[in-house]
Amino acid sequence: MTLDTDIQQAREQLVMINPQPYNAEAPPGALAADVTPTAQHYVRSNFAVPVHDGTLVVDGAVDRQLSLTLADLRDLPAVEHAVTLECAGNGRLDTRPLPVGEPWGGYAVSTARWRGARLCDVLAAARPHSDGVEVRFSGADSGTYHLTPVLPETGDNLRFVRSLPLTHAADPASEILIAYDMNGEPLGPDHGSPFRLVVPHWFAVASVKWLQRIDVLTEPFSGEFQTGHYMYEWLDRPHEPVSLMRVRARVTDPAEAAVIPAGTYTLRGKAWSGTGPVTAVDVCFTGAGDWQSAKVDGPSGPYAWQSWSFEWVATPGRHSIRARATDAGGNVQPDVPPWNRLGYGNNAVEVQYVDVV
Amino acid sequence: MTLDTDIQQAREQLVMINPQPYNAEAPPGALAADVTPTAQHYVRSNFAVPVHDGTLVVDGAVDRQLSLTLADLRDLPAVEHAVTLECAGNGRLDTRPLPVGEPWGGYAVSTARWRGARLCDVLAAARPHSDGVEVRFSGADSGTYHLTPVLPETGDNLRFVRSLPLTHAADPASEILIAYDMNGEPLGPDHGSPFRLVVPHWFAVASVKWLQRIDVLTEPFSGEFQTGHYMYEWLDRPHEPVSLMRVRARVTDPAEAAVIPAGTYTLRGKAWSGTGPVTAVDVCFTGAGDWQSAKVDGPSGPYAWQSWSFEWVATPGRHSIRARATDAGGNVQPDVPPWNRLGYGNNAVEVQYVDVV
Repeated sequence: MTLDTDIQQAREQLVMINPQPYNAEAPPGALAADVTPTAQHYVRSNFAVPVHDGTLVVDGAVDRQLSLTLADLRDLPAVEHAVTLECAGNGRLDTRPLPVGEPWGGYAVSTARWRGARLCDVLAAARPHSDGVEVRFSGADSGTYHLTPVLPETGDNLRFVRSLPLTHAADPASEILIAYDMNGEPLGPDHGSPFRLVVPHWFAVASVKWLQRIDVLTEPFSGEFQTGHYMYEWLDRPHEPVSLMRVRARVTDPAEAAVIPAGTYTLRGKAWSGTGPVTAVDVCFTGAGDWQSAKVDGPSGPYAWQSWSFEWVATPGRHSIRARATDAGGNVQPDVPPWNRLGYGNNAVEVQYVDVV
Repeated sequence: MTLDTDIQQAREQLVMINPQPYNAEAPPGALAADVTPTAQHYVRSNFAVPVHDGTLVVDGAVDRQLSLTLADLRDLPAVEHAVTLECAGNGRLDTRPLPVGEPWGGYAVSTARWRGARLCDVLAAARPHSDGVEVRFSGADSGTYHLTPVLPETGDNLRFVRSLPLTHAADPASEILIAYDMNGEPLGPDHGSPFRLVVPHWFAVASVKWLQRIDVLTEPFSGEFQTGHYMYEWLDRPHEPVSLMRVRARVTDPAEAAVIPAGTYTLRGKAWSGTGPVTAVDVCFTGAGDWQSAKVDGPSGPYAWQSWSFEWVATPGRHSIRARATDAGGNVQPDVPPWNRLGYGNNAVEVQYVDVV
């Protein structure tokens, strides 16, 4: 496959994890901004960038089948939100023992301004049957899966397909978008052009790219990306599907292993959670032992990460730095989350260090 | 305290962990060489560099008390060995939850050529009593301990004191040195001048610097650095003293988070163990899953780390790299060692990554 120049340019600022399918982290500096520039927004794909025919079919258990074009979607009432998307495998490299899967560090998370039609409006137009239970979303992307499939019946020409409960998908309060603009521009190929799902609060696996079909189902969907991969395979309790993003803080300044001068230094970072706004970020340094409260800014929107900061008096020597977020749901980052075989949802308190000279 | 220029110069190439007492890691590049240049050998101190009166007293349960000068020690038969010394806290920063203590990364390990008198010869000259059980070694260094003491009776003017079993100390096969030369030069202040113990195979806490007194004891010694700190405080079994270095491999090339070109790349590293020569190093990459055998060189001496290498065909993208050592005692590095409160002996298989472009 030869890539056209546009795609190559769109990838220049990213840190590539896998060339085929293309997966790439945001550059570390990208986490400092409230809104990530499109060229620095991480990319997660399970298959190569597909050819999309430009139509979105809505079908299944509905009174009215729809076939929508990008123009049709743009004619519907538009909503725009800054939404933080995080890959469920973000932080996998820090999980021990190291699980299988893409070796994501900590930069498979970004925040963009997504604009699109509301999924609830599209579903309302199609009028789901009363016995509908789930909504299935099919991407245009398919092929041979580059990871070892979990489901025994998985064939060698998989398609990226996910589902959501109908009650969640059709609820206006969910504010799920069929997004066509990202940071004020039409979606690029790596981000799901011409349109994609954007599901706030959920790990980004739910935000199906290159959206091609929406089907209302009368039975729960099972498939490689729903009940095979993207499952928490716990060791000592039943498996669970990956759903909401877990509460997490990252230090964005200073950088890992930075060398900084002694004196007052403003630590900065981001924090986010799919289970409620972040209500506290606490920091801890070598030797101090005690956790101290950082200043947490309110979110720029209901679905966006929050900035936090802490005025630190840095003395010479090496210091470990830890930041730990708590959300309104009472969820707190653990030191060591329970391990799961596929390495999802690692929201351990990160330990980084700086050398102060 | 003002440092004289010699000490300042001796510290220039190191990565400082703590200015007082002075603790510093070797620079990462130092692990590539078989013998670490003195200026790049890590430094671990529990107190400030002391004034040493130049004499070594041998006393306690012995027939013949001794008072030896550096010249006396140089008159005894000399032995020289390359000895790998590793701080028991090396790798603490990678332990989860993060334990208390100095935030050592992975570079509190080095190998120098140590030359000195044999401890067994000095003990033989003093003629220990038949009821002797341990030999206590006192450094000239003392002061207020910068960490929280473990022993309740610990005062605020501690001295660095350690002991070894008399049978081990007096055994010629132990090859424990009272070292006065390091890499062909007299010891510098940070490395224990005018003389220090060098105990092969043991974590370096046993290798008492600035050695001032040797006392043969008829009862086991207890003290902050013997039965307080430098104890494995396990959660679910009795505490144990820190003793022999645990089997461990490190990747020295490529460096962590390096960006390297695609193609054949020779991975290189070091491996060591206090419980037997390293007999195998296996490596594992993202996706491959299978462990593959690296080439392990024989040691340059019985107490020195070993080099290993592996010809790797690097394809574009991010790859995790793991190296896992096995020693002749059958000890293998674990993915997650049992946790101990003070964070000693972390010999977990390290996970590093490289970005191949």
